[in-house]
Amino acid sequence: MRITVKKFNDMHAHLREGEMLTYVVSEMIGYDHVLVMPNTRDPILEGGQARAYKAYIEKEQKSAPDTFCPLMTLQITEQTTPDMIYTAREVIIAGKVYPRGMTTNSGNGVLDYSKIYPALSAMEDIDMVLCLHGEKPGEFCLEREEQFLSIIREIMSTFPSLRIVLEHITTCAAVEYIKQAPANVAATITVHHLSLTLDDVIGAELRPHHFCKPVAKCYGDREALRNVVRSGHPRFFLGTDSAPHLRGKKECSHGCAGIFTAPSTPALICEFFQGDVEKINRFANEFGAAFYHLSPTKAHITLERWDGSPNNTPRVRMDGPVEIFTGNDDGILPWRIIHDE
Amino acid sequence: MRITVKKFNDMHAHLREGEMLTYVVSEMIGYDHVLVMPNTRDPILEGGQARAYKAYIEKEQKSAPDTFCPLMTLQITEQTTPDMIYTAREVIIAGKVYPRGMTTNSGNGVLDYSKIYPALSAMEDIDMVLCLHGEKPGEFCLEREEQFLSIIREIMSTFPSLRIVLEHITTCAAVEYIKQAPANVAATITVHHLSLTLDDVIGAELRPHHFCKPVAKCYGDREALRNVVRSGHPRFFLGTDSAPHLRGKKECSHGCAGIFTAPSTPALICEFFQGDVEKINRFANEFGAAFYHLSPTKAHITLERWDGSPNNTPRVRMDGPVEIFTGNDDGILPWRIIHDE
Repeated sequence: MRITVKKFNDMHAHLREGEMLTYVVSEMIGYDHVLVMPNTRDPILEGGQARAYKAYIEKEQKSAPDTFCPLMTLQITEQTTPDMIYTAREVIIAGKVYPRGMTTNSGNGVLDYSKIYPALSAMEDIDMVLCLHGEKPGEFCLEREEQFLSIIREIMSTFPSLRIVLEHITTCAAVEYIKQAPANVAATITVHHLSLTLDDVIGAELRPHHFCKPVAKCYGDREALRNVVRSGHPRFFLGTDSAPHLRGKKECSHGCAGIFTAPSTPALICEFFQGDVEKINRFANEFGAAFYHLSPTKAHITLERWDGSPNNTPRVRMDGPVEIFTGNDDGILPWRIIHDE
Repeated sequence: MRITVKKFNDMHAHLREGEMLTYVVSEMIGYDHVLVMPNTRDPILEGGQARAYKAYIEKEQKSAPDTFCPLMTLQITEQTTPDMIYTAREVIIAGKVYPRGMTTNSGNGVLDYSKIYPALSAMEDIDMVLCLHGEKPGEFCLEREEQFLSIIREIMSTFPSLRIVLEHITTCAAVEYIKQAPANVAATITVHHLSLTLDDVIGAELRPHHFCKPVAKCYGDREALRNVVRSGHPRFFLGTDSAPHLRGKKECSHGCAGIFTAPSTPALICEFFQGDVEKINRFANEFGAAFYHLSPTKAHITLERWDGSPNNTPRVRMDGPVEIFTGNDDGILPWRIIHDE
């Protein structure tokens, strides 16, 4: 089986910096637009930094096998001023808020959400998207997302026309909340949250390469995510949250959160939709493009489903510096990209 | 502050085999009786194996700084016959049931509990204790213990005079269940389940040295454990489930379950009870001895509480082959054993 789909829009990815960036860019094949998260080691807090980071990414792309269009973001902290938003508007399309201490490089994140209201007001003014890591600090790990919904409710009522994306949702509660929210509020969903439950993290052995924030939840939560994605709801679209860490940062006494999915997401999404081109295009390209007002994608990729033959097993590189998520221990993917157009 | 308490009875410990056994025995200071789990690499399935394992442990104790009395167990599998129970009664004091595939070396564990009823009948007949790893296979990781309660209920109603210990309980549901159970049903509680919640495993970074089966649960569950232990209920007593694994088996892509607590349990229990000698003796010695019909403990240990001075910080060895649990990252214990009598 062969299908040709639009190149993917990944509305949430971590590209990192340095050698890791070089590696990550070399592994990203089949993407059109990629929304680049700002929580680098030196975070992207101002427009100038976003501009420099974008140039850095584009330089790395020159030696990569495929290129994508990086869409830049700013990290919104309690120190972000409206001026910083207005100045950055030429180079960024979204502002990202991390709760303090909740994930990688978020020590500068937000504790008191009222302190970012001046920045949010500026964002609403110029129609810039707000991306939220939706976990409330200080809550029990499995309840942080649901507890966060009161924060997003407050933001929505204060800034009713602000476009908001609740990122990498993991719970039935978040699905239901976004469904009933107005048209300016959406959510991203990752491939790993469509695949995993907490049983895949701690249910048998401890699996650091399945550990991410928010952590995968229970079967009912995964089913709610799968159902809303299958249903083709336009306010739920792909954001991989692809988050590479060196193996040594995962397989250690204090393992980092994050799953590296960018190289495998096209194959896994095609499998999820059983090769249904229209549904793949909507979830992985059009719904995100519509919400973010992106230019239509013209480039396509062709994928071939593996026929099960042992001679041509589509396998990710197992010996790279970062473990690539496939959902199995053999590194086997159900589809391979056979060419770009 | 100095206190003198009875040597501890640990009613659930994994001593392993080979070099690991040598190491574990050398680290166990302050114990009188220790109930030795049978899930070694070659499991203890018959009385002869238990006898040989006991001799092996006693040989290793000759070069250890302190000795304890090993109490032997048999693993009850679907193949265990009543004859095997009767033959083993001279050397073992309990039979242990693992659900299949639930924890370390449990591939031979039980799936169909009715298949062990002939063995349980023999155990009831000779008043041998049944120890249960209380997790139901095939259930969601956080619900396995509560789901297991229907299995213990069935066993209790079929064998009403069988003495049963529900091991290393982690939930409020199990606490409540054991409280209302008759006098021949008890539970063990570990130091790590008095200390940890799931937040300490997956809430911030991923912590393999806090990963065990059953996994630590939520704050309400931990509070229920703490409350019943503080209350001095005689059917809740110490079983450390001390379960050493080499660092490389924990800090890896598929980490083993188990926390090594035997060396730190005396200090952590003294701290839990704030040095209350009577309460320490009850939970860590007398309640277990009464349930298992052990001989009274005559040997004592004296412990001194750390005064906070940086000169004499009581610290566990941080460079051993196995990470010793202290509940903090510095390896600091609140008490040190200053001598045995």
